[in-house]
Amino acid sequence: MAPSTITLTTDFGWTELPAAIRGVIHDVAPPGTRVVDITHSVPSHDIIQGAYAMLTTCPLYKEAVHIGVVDPGVGTKRRAIAIEAGNSFLVGPDNGLLAPLAHKLGFKRAVALQVSKYWRAPVSATFHGRDIFAPVGAHLCAGVLLEQLGTPIDDPLHLPAFEVHNGEDEIRASIVSIDKFGNLVTSIPSRLVVHELEAGQALDMRIAGRRIRPHPVAAYGEIEGRAFGAIVNSSDFVEIAMFNASAAERTGARSGDPVFLYK
Amino acid sequence: MAPSTITLTTDFGWTELPAAIRGVIHDVAPPGTRVVDITHSVPSHDIIQGAYAMLTTCPLYKEAVHIGVVDPGVGTKRRAIAIEAGNSFLVGPDNGLLAPLAHKLGFKRAVALQVSKYWRAPVSATFHGRDIFAPVGAHLCAGVLLEQLGTPIDDPLHLPAFEVHNGEDEIRASIVSIDKFGNLVTSIPSRLVVHELEAGQALDMRIAGRRIRPHPVAAYGEIEGRAFGAIVNSSDFVEIAMFNASAAERTGARSGDPVFLYK
Amino acid sequence: MAPSTITLTTDFGWTELPAAIRGVIHDVAPPGTRVVDITHSVPSHDIIQGAYAMLTTCPLYKEAVHIGVVDPGVGTKRRAIAIEAGNSFLVGPDNGLLAPLAHKLGFKRAVALQVSKYWRAPVSATFHGRDIFAPVGAHLCAGVLLEQLGTPIDDPLHLPAFEVHNGEDEIRASIVSIDKFGNLVTSIPSRLVVHELEAGQALDMRIAGRRIRPHPVAAYGEIEGRAFGAIVNSSDFVEIAMFNASAAERTGARSGDPVFLYK
Repeated sequence: MAPSTITLTTDFGWTELPAAIRGVIHDVAPPGTRVVDITHSVPSHDIIQGAYAMLTTCPLYKEAVHIGVVDPGVGTKRRAIAIEAGNSFLVGPDNGLLAPLAHKLGFKRAVALQVSKYWRAPVSATFHGRDIFAPVGAHLCAGVLLEQLGTPIDDPLHLPAFEVHNGEDEIRASIVSIDKFGNLVTSIPSRLVVHELEAGQALDMRIAGRRIRPHPVAAYGEIEGRAFGAIVNSSDFVEIAMFNASAAERTGARSGDPVFLYK
Repeated sequence: MAPSTITLTTDFGWTELPAAIRGVIHDVAPPGTRVVDITHSVPSHDIIQGAYAMLTTCPLYKEAVHIGVVDPGVGTKRRAIAIEAGNSFLVGPDNGLLAPLAHKLGFKRAVALQVSKYWRAPVSATFHGRDIFAPVGAHLCAGVLLEQLGTPIDDPLHLPAFEVHNGEDEIRASIVSIDKFGNLVTSIPSRLVVHELEAGQALDMRIAGRRIRPHPVAAYGEIEGRAFGAIVNSSDFVEIAMFNASAAERTGARSGDPVFLYK
Repeated sequence: MAPSTITLTTDFGWTELPAAIRGVIHDVAPPGTRVVDITHSVPSHDIIQGAYAMLTTCPLYKEAVHIGVVDPGVGTKRRAIAIEAGNSFLVGPDNGLLAPLAHKLGFKRAVALQVSKYWRAPVSATFHGRDIFAPVGAHLCAGVLLEQLGTPIDDPLHLPAFEVHNGEDEIRASIVSIDKFGNLVTSIPSRLVVHELEAGQALDMRIAGRRIRPHPVAAYGEIEGRAFGAIVNSSDFVEIAMFNASAAERTGARSGDPVFLYK
């Protein structure tokens, strides 16, 4: 059955642009289709943080069409794609934004969007969110099949920041999100450090060229003084935090920066 | 009858976190339940401004479940509570956030949330909004009774900033909100100064250690030069404003600061 | 037939104030009325940018009531108005905010809002969005006729920034929006420079007292070095952009500033 929910994740800010996307969806999708804003606060052009927001939040909406638009290459030759994953569809630019969510939901197949009769005409060079991704997502809710939208592709771009290397001596990962408090979310899943967490043993890490030794804590309030704490965040990633201070500012770390955890 | 509207007030910013809450509610609440964002722009950890947003806006949504999450103590031993007040329910941390709204709607009874079968499992240490408050609110819409959620308590925390002392010589109150223009909302209800307002008589006040004499005005545009004006705001509180300038910046006042009005 | 969609465009920020408007609409409008946020991020008191957001986005919502509240004169003697244009209604202050959208949709007639039984009582001096515009918009959805709301007027204010003078030697226009990347949207419709765009010929412009020669580009990524580019934006206006830099910062231009294009 076609999905009846569409989610939106963009870096447009909470300007009028998301409302334009919503208006186009409303025109094309069946009555009763629900449109949900995941967020429009993704930092401009930050594909990694956009991917993180989609990865952690979209799975709470089952059997949905997830539209993502963090698209610095809009209007250039980058492909526009749609993916089937689990019981959901993902629509957006082929720049890695959709990859972590597709992987989590269970990647099935992908197409490059080519069939312009499912687009809004004329297509603006700067706003594919409104003119391509929104109508394509709405058509999926109206029962159009993935294969009607374009040609199958087998190589949608990956996003290396979410690929964790678990070596003998070290784990190599990345910063994948920075929240409003300056907490640093790493791509390290908590199960890889379950021993250290249970033993209450400080982690030995390098972030943004700086060696730190965050102590495992169960709540932000437990972090002492000006020290770094390590907490399992609400999506089961290891997060580096300070109490009433910004770990991002202190370390200078940014999304995509490499993270090393020494065993 | 169970409510069919849920409102959300948080300090998460307009990130993906409110969408996570919304997704959980959607899974648990009956179809057709309406979810309304009051705001997610409450300054981080500012319980007073969160309480003010709930107090002034939630009453416009009748027979609703009002979820509030400004929760610096998340993951510590602070209680999570649900309150019945008027024809509505309030759900959130027991830190005073819900108290002014509960008082206004007519406090009836409260429980400490303890019955985990109405929660999402597993419960994250950092995101009770998604894992406890959202499902509890949704279950209230689905007909679960307050007493099924936990043990009755008779001492939910108050929020002193909203308690106004009307003495013989002075009124003692607090700053309870600062808007985007820097206007300072006090907890003084306009009825306490109706004589001065009608007489057009300057108020004699002390805010943030500074003596000021704001003149009553009916519109921001009437405030002269660089003077302070006193205006009855849209929720009937006395508000201190400047014209095209920020009273908050000029005085250095912050939410929770004491306010004295001398008679 | 009465509209079943209401859109909201304000400069309130994403505070609790839009939720108050939404609550009032919900009480008055027929069940099933859809309320859509266009944006609440209009810069404070910036009537021109508010008008631009409405002009470019509201037409995607057909047969709707479009409420606009960018209203520095609230509480003074400025008129409150409702307009019929195309198959839609526009409601807001009479300060030019509604004029470009009304013109685009096809202005039919206007009234000054005077019949207080369609308002919320009592009317706050500072929040006509909640107390006048919201209930009036909701009553239009409930079938109340424009002429029941007040007295016809034939002179609603225009907004000169959107009036383009196409002279023999030059086009005179204005900056009408600045996006989050600092791109400068002018009021020049692309059809006036179609020759230059097709020829790939640099435009000769003066913005904020500065002479610039932006080259036409089809995508932001095509702008070279620290040069200015001219791009047809998603609403068919000529936009001045830089690549990974802010044209607004570089030129110091602000909304409403005059723009000259020499032929």
